[in-house]
Amino acid sequence: MSQSISMPQSFRAIDVIRKKRDAIELSREEIEGLVNAYTRGDIPDYQVSAWLMAVVLRGMTRSETAALTDAMLRSGEVLDLSSLSARKVDKHSTGGVGDKTSLVLAPLAAAAGVAVPMISGRGLGHTGGTLDKLEAIPGFNVNLPVAEFRRLLEVCGCAMIGQTAEIAPADRKLYALRDVTGTVESPYLICASIMSKKLAEGIDALVLDVKTGSGAFMKSEKDAAFLAELMVETGERMGKEVVALITDMDQPLGNMIGNALEVVEVVEVLRGDGPEDLRELCLELAGWMLRLGKVAGSVAEGKQKSAKLIESGHALERFRQMVELQGGDPHVIDDAKKLPQAQHTMQVQSAKSGYLVSMQCEQIGTACVILGGGRERKEDSVDPSVGIILHKKVGDQVATGEPLATIYYNAEPRAHRARQLIAASCQINDIAPSAMRPLIHKVIGKSGEKL
Amino acid sequence: MSQSISMPQSFRAIDVIRKKRDAIELSREEIEGLVNAYTRGDIPDYQVSAWLMAVVLRGMTRSETAALTDAMLRSGEVLDLSSLSARKVDKHSTGGVGDKTSLVLAPLAAAAGVAVPMISGRGLGHTGGTLDKLEAIPGFNVNLPVAEFRRLLEVCGCAMIGQTAEIAPADRKLYALRDVTGTVESPYLICASIMSKKLAEGIDALVLDVKTGSGAFMKSEKDAAFLAELMVETGERMGKEVVALITDMDQPLGNMIGNALEVVEVVEVLRGDGPEDLRELCLELAGWMLRLGKVAGSVAEGKQKSAKLIESGHALERFRQMVELQGGDPHVIDDAKKLPQAQHTMQVQSAKSGYLVSMQCEQIGTACVILGGGRERKEDSVDPSVGIILHKKVGDQVATGEPLATIYYNAEPRAHRARQLIAASCQINDIAPSAMRPLIHKVIGKSGEKL
Repeated sequence: MSQSISMPQSFRAIDVIRKKRDAIELSREEIEGLVNAYTRGDIPDYQVSAWLMAVVLRGMTRSETAALTDAMLRSGEVLDLSSLSARKVDKHSTGGVGDKTSLVLAPLAAAAGVAVPMISGRGLGHTGGTLDKLEAIPGFNVNLPVAEFRRLLEVCGCAMIGQTAEIAPADRKLYALRDVTGTVESPYLICASIMSKKLAEGIDALVLDVKTGSGAFMKSEKDAAFLAELMVETGERMGKEVVALITDMDQPLGNMIGNALEVVEVVEVLRGDGPEDLRELCLELAGWMLRLGKVAGSVAEGKQKSAKLIESGHALERFRQMVELQGGDPHVIDDAKKLPQAQHTMQVQSAKSGYLVSMQCEQIGTACVILGGGRERKEDSVDPSVGIILHKKVGDQVATGEPLATIYYNAEPRAHRARQLIAASCQINDIAPSAMRPLIHKVIGKSGEKL
Repeated sequence: MSQSISMPQSFRAIDVIRKKRDAIELSREEIEGLVNAYTRGDIPDYQVSAWLMAVVLRGMTRSETAALTDAMLRSGEVLDLSSLSARKVDKHSTGGVGDKTSLVLAPLAAAAGVAVPMISGRGLGHTGGTLDKLEAIPGFNVNLPVAEFRRLLEVCGCAMIGQTAEIAPADRKLYALRDVTGTVESPYLICASIMSKKLAEGIDALVLDVKTGSGAFMKSEKDAAFLAELMVETGERMGKEVVALITDMDQPLGNMIGNALEVVEVVEVLRGDGPEDLRELCLELAGWMLRLGKVAGSVAEGKQKSAKLIESGHALERFRQMVELQGGDPHVIDDAKKLPQAQHTMQVQSAKSGYLVSMQCEQIGTACVILGGGRERKEDSVDPSVGIILHKKVGDQVATGEPLATIYYNAEPRAHRARQLIAASCQINDIAPSAMRPLIHKVIGKSGEKL
C-alpha cells in the first residue's frame, strides 16, 4: 500500500504523518503546509493528533523545530512595535508555584527604560498564571486590543495582556488538541508553542526562565537544559537575542501562593521587602532584561540599576501607573485589604520537630488548585482570594506544633484536603539538609555571561 | 501538569494515551474501555488516532494484542455455527497480486467435508480483494444476511460474503481511521484487525497465508514471520488452532491479474489445469485446511485428497453450486466469455533478450489499479473486465520483442501507463537467476508440521 497511484501535487497530510512516523526529516514546506492547512480548518483534528504523537515519540531536528515555530508565528499577526524607540525585551517562565516575577519585572524593566510588551497565559494544573494574578486586582483588564496595548507601551513602557485572537492562532488550536491527546509533553512542541507567541510580540530580545525541580514541568535539570537550549537556538535562528536561566522550582518561589496573595508579595518586593529567594530571582532576571535591553552594559550593572529603582520607589510607581492604565484599582498597593479576601484561615502545623529538608512543590501547587485558586481544566473559574502562606522553607528549623503554613480558604472540606496535602508534602528530618539547591542552576545562550 | 486533582473513576482516554506513549503496558480493562467507548462514539477520533500512533511507535505486548483483538471481536456479533457438525476452518491471506486462492479453497475444502465460513474484504492499493473477484461473476451476491450465510453453509459447506455491520464494528471504525492517519503499518494493529474479524466467524481453526516479497504488505520475511507469530499466538490464546504459512509474493501468483481474469484462472485450477505456482499453493493451503478440519490426518494426506477432489471434478462442482446459491451465473464456468470482457488488448514486449530475473510485484498490482481493476481509495469503483495476463514469470527466458504480458483495457491512456509500469518492473539479465525463491518460505504454529 506504500505505492500511491496518482500523487496530487497539493499538500497531503497523510504523507507528512507517515514521514514523521518513519523518522524522516520534514521540509519547511511540509511543516508550513500542515500548520496552515490545520489553522484554516482544511485538515481534521484526527490527522494532526496522529502527527503530534509521532512528533512526541520521534522528536524533531533543530530545522524542523524552527520551521514549526516560524509557521505558527506567521499563522497570525506579528506586532510591529518599531515605533517605540526603546529596545523591546520580554521575559517568559515555563511555569511554577508561587512564581510572580512577571508582575515585578515588567514595571521594573520599564522604569529602567526597556519596553516590555508582555503577553501572558492563565494557570493550568498545579502552576499559576500571570493573567489570573493580575485579575486579582479589582478592575484590571487583561483583554486590550492591540492598538491600546501599543499605546500603553508608549505611555508606560510596559503592558500585560492575554493572548489575542490575532496572535499565533495556530498555537491556540494546536495547544487545545495537545491538551486532550497526551501530546503536551514534547520539548519541541513546547518550544514552538512558547517561542511562536513570544516572537509574535515584536520583541528584540527575550529572557527565558526555565524551571526545574519537583514543582516544574521539567523535573530534571537535564530536561530543563534541553528545552532551554532548544528555545535559545530557535530564537537565535530568528534573529533575536535570547538567554535562558535554569532556575529552581523544587519548592515554591517566595512565601505566598494564590492570586491575591501573590499580588501582595509582588508589592512587598517592589517596596524593597519580600522574601529573599523571590527578590534575588527578580533582580537576576531584571539584570538580564536590562542588559539585553541595552540600558546596562552587564548583568551586574543591570542588577544594581534594578535594586536602585526599587529603593527609589520608581519601580513601584511604574507598577501603580500600569495598574491604573489597565483599569485596575491602584489602592490595592497601599492597602492589601482592597484585594479579594478569603473568609477563613487554617494552620498547617508540624507533626514533629526537626529541619524542613524538602517540599513536594507540585503538591503545594495542587493544594492551591484544590482551594479553588487554580484550574484543572481550561474552562474552570478561579477564586482569587484563596491561597497559602508558607512560614517555613527548605532548610528552616521547625518545632512540633509550629505552623508550616496558613491556608486562606472559603470552603472547609477543600481546606482540609489542602492541609493534608501540604502536610504530606513537607519532609521533616532530624538532620539539616547537607546542601541547599542553588536558586539559579545555569545560564544558557550565546548572549550569556558567566555568573 | 501530571498531577490530576480529582480523578474520576470512569474510563479516561487521555490516561490510556499517555500510558501507551510512555511505553507502560495497558491492562485488559483499559484496552476494552478504549475500544468500547470508541465504538459507542463516546471518545473522539482525535484521541484514538493519537493512541494508534503511540501503538505504531511503541508496539504492544502479547497480552495487549490479545486484549485488543478480543475487545474488537466482542464489539459485535460472534457467529454461532455450532449447529454445523463439520469443523469450521477458514483461510486468510494478508493480500497480494494475483492471489485468487480463496476462490479455489472454499469449494475445495467444502468438497472434502470441511465447513468454510469465509468473510472477505475488497482490494485496496496494489492488492486485489476476494469480494471484487467474486463480483466479476454476473449476479454473484456477497451481501448476504447472517441467517442466509448460515443456511448456505449447511447446504453447500462454504459461503463467501463481505463483512456485515454486525461483525467487529470496532474494526471497521478503527480501520477507517488508521487508513487516514498513517497508522495502518503496525503488526499489532494488523493482527488485531485480521484476527478479530476471523474469530468472529465462529471458526474452530484458521490457516493464515502471510505474504512476503515485493508485492506483499510485509516486504521482508522477518516482518512477515513476526506478524505470523503474533497472529498464531493471538489465535491460540483464544483457543483456536492456527497455523501460518509464509509464502512468496515477490512476483504475482499465477499468470492472471484482474477480477474477471482471475475467475478464469480459478476455474482452470479447479479443472486440474492452471499455472504451477498457483496450483501448488492451493494444494498446500488446502492440505492444511483439511488437516485442521480433521478430514485428513496429515497435511500430505490433505494435499492428496484435495488433488483427487480436483481430478474427480467434485471441487469444481462445489464451486458451481456456491456460485448458483449466491445468485451468480454458473455459465461463466463453462464459457469465460460470459464474464465481463475488456474491449481491447495490448502487448507488453520485451525490449531485450535474456532471462526474467525479477518483477517489481507491487508495480504490477499498481498497473492493474491504473487500468481500473483495483481501487486507490475505498470509495472507488472497480472495472471487473480489465487486467493483465503474464506470459513470462521469474526464471523464464525471453527474446527481444517477445510478449512479456497482455494488457486487457478499456481506456487507452491508462493502458499506456500500465504498459510502461509493467515493462519497467521486469528486470531482464543475460544470466539466469542463480536461485529461485521458494513458494513456501516457512510454516509457523504449534499445529505446524515440518514441510
